Amino acid sequence: MTIAVFPGQIRPLVEGRLPDWLDARFFNTGDELVALAADAEIGWFDYFNEGIGPMLEAFQRAEKLRWLITMSAGLDYMPLDMLTGRGVMITKGSGLTSAPIAEYTVMGMLALAKGFRQVLHAQDRREWLQDSPGKRQLAGSRALIVGFGAIGRELARRLTAFDVEVVGVTRSGGDGLLGLDDWRPRLGEFDWVILAAPATADTRHMIGAEELAAMKSDAILVNIARGTLVDQQALTEALADMRIGGAMLDVTEPEPLPADDPLWSFDNVHITMHLTGRSQTSAFADTTERLLANLDIYRSGQPPRPLFDPALGY
Amino acid sequence: MTIAVFPGQIRPLVEGRLPDWLDARFFNTGDELVALAADAEIGWFDYFNEGIGPMLEAFQRAEKLRWLITMSAGLDYMPLDMLTGRGVMITKGSGLTSAPIAEYTVMGMLALAKGFRQVLHAQDRREWLQDSPGKRQLAGSRALIVGFGAIGRELARRLTAFDVEVVGVTRSGGDGLLGLDDWRPRLGEFDWVILAAPATADTRHMIGAEELAAMKSDAILVNIARGTLVDQQALTEALADMRIGGAMLDVTEPEPLPADDPLWSFDNVHITMHLTGRSQTSAFADTTERLLANLDIYRSGQPPRPLFDPALGY
Repeated sequence: MTIAVFPGQIRPLVEGRLPDWLDARFFNTGDELVALAADAEIGWFDYFNEGIGPMLEAFQRAEKLRWLITMSAGLDYMPLDMLTGRGVMITKGSGLTSAPIAEYTVMGMLALAKGFRQVLHAQDRREWLQDSPGKRQLAGSRALIVGFGAIGRELARRLTAFDVEVVGVTRSGGDGLLGLDDWRPRLGEFDWVILAAPATADTRHMIGAEELAAMKSDAILVNIARGTLVDQQALTEALADMRIGGAMLDVTEPEPLPADDPLWSFDNVHITMHLTGRSQTSAFADTTERLLANLDIYRSGQPPRPLFDPALGY
Repeated sequence: MTIAVFPGQIRPLVEGRLPDWLDARFFNTGDELVALAADAEIGWFDYFNEGIGPMLEAFQRAEKLRWLITMSAGLDYMPLDMLTGRGVMITKGSGLTSAPIAEYTVMGMLALAKGFRQVLHAQDRREWLQDSPGKRQLAGSRALIVGFGAIGRELARRLTAFDVEVVGVTRSGGDGLLGLDDWRPRLGEFDWVILAAPATADTRHMIGAEELAAMKSDAILVNIARGTLVDQQALTEALADMRIGGAMLDVTEPEPLPADDPLWSFDNVHITMHLTGRSQTSAFADTTERLLANLDIYRSGQPPRPLFDPALGY
C-alpha cells in the first residue's frame, strides 16, 4: 500500500473515490500533520492556519515523500532545494485561484481609483459625502502586467472589459507581449504596474528606486506576486515623497507586515494581507479533483501535472 | 441673440467654439444661477454643490426656457410636469456616466463578496488578517439587472468578463431580455438583484417585502437607480432579519440618508452616497461636446438629442 497524507477537509470529497492501492490518512491540526508526514509517499500538506511552521517541519520529516501536492501557485516558502534534492515531484496549484485573485485585484484597483476607503470611513461616521474622493476611471487607462501566467491572463481579461489597455510581460515576450528586459524603458507609459510573476532570483527587487522613479507620478503599483519582487524600502520612500500615486500590496516582506511598518499608514496604500487567493471556497475541491485525476498517472509511473520545474524555479 | 446659461466650469471648454447667434452667460454659484435663469432660452443648470435648492428655484424662474440640458440620466428631481407644460425640451445625460457608474458598481459588488470593509478596518488597526472575511466569487454567480439602458449594458459587459451570468430586464423584453412582468417569478434564481431602471410611477417600490422574500437568502440587492424603487422599510426589516445577504445602496430615500437611519449600521450594507456617477472628471467635458453638436440642430428647428420623453417618464 502507498501511504498518502491529505488535509482532513477533503475526506468527504474523496470518500469512495480513492484507488485500493492507496492508504489515505488525514490530518486536522499542525501536530497531526507533523506526526503523519514521516510515512507519506504522497503528501498534500497545505495547512496555513498556524502559519507555515507545521508545514516546514512536515517537509523536514517527510523523507519517504515522492510526490508533494499543493494548492499554492507560488512555492517559494518551501525548502525547494531539499525537496528536489530528495527527488520529490511537486504539483502546484497554478490556475486554481486565478479567478478569485483576479477578482480581488480589480476590486483593489477600483477602490484606489474611487477613494473607496474614505467612503467606507464616512459610512462609519454616518456621513453622506457630497463628492467622490476618487475620480479616476479604469476606462482609458493603461496597465502593465509583469508575469502573464494564469493569474495575469485572468486579470487581463477582466481589465479589458473595463476598457483598460493591457500589456503583458513574459520571460520570452512575443505575441504582443513584452520580454523580460523590454518593459523597463516603457514603465512611464502605464497607469497601473501590476506584478504577477514568480519569486525567483531574477525577479527579486525587480521594482526598486529606479523603476519607481520611471513610473508616472500618479501610477499605482499592484503587487499580487511576492513581497520580494519589490524593494520595499524604496517603495516606502517613493510613497512618502508622493512620487507615485499609490499601491495595492497583497504581499509584503515579511508577512505578516509588522505593526510598526510605515506602509500601514498611507491613505493611498491598500494592504490586503495575502487574502486575494483565499477569497474563495473552491480551491480545496478543485485541487481534490486534480489529485484524483493525477493518481492514476502517478501509479503508471508518469509525472503528475502541473509539475514544478526546479530549473525555472516555478 | 439667444440667451444661454451655462455652468462656469465649461467656459474654458467652449471658448471660441460657440455660434455667433448665442449670448452665453455663466454661473459659478447658486445665487448666480438663480439670477440668470429668468432670461435663459437655453439652460444648462446642473449645480449640485448646495443640494438641489438653487436648481429648483432656477426652474421656477426660467419662464423663457425652451431647451434644458442636464448631465443627469435620471430627471426625477426636476419639476417635469411644469417644465413639459411650458413646452421645454430636455436633453438628458444618458450614457455619459455609464462607464464610471458600472466601474463603481462592480467595485461595490466585489467589496461585499470579499468582506473588504473588514479588511480595511483591519488595516486601520494594522492587523494582518489570516483569512478572507468574504469568500464569495463573482465567477459562476447570476445577476438580474432591472433596467437595461446604457448603465445596465455597461455593467453587464463588465460582469460577463467576470463569468457572471447576466439577465437583463427591459420594459418590453425580447432578445434574451425579460419583460417588465417576467422577472418577479424568477427572483429566486439570482445572487445579485441590480436596479438600474428610471424612477417612474411604474417602478416605485418595485422591490418590497414580497420581492425581498422571494430572493435567495444570500442574494445581494444593488440599487444604482433611485431610492424610490425600493420600499426602504421592508429592506431594513429584511436585512435585520438576515433574509437577504446584503445591499449596495448608491441611492436612498431621502438623500442624504439621515444619520439615525438603521441602514447605516449593517456590516453587509454599503451606502455609497450617490457617488457612482461622480467618480469621474469627464462628464462636464462630454456634455459640452454633446451641447456643441446639438446647438446647430436646435437652431435648425429640430429637437436636440437624447430627448426626455414625457410619455415614458424618462
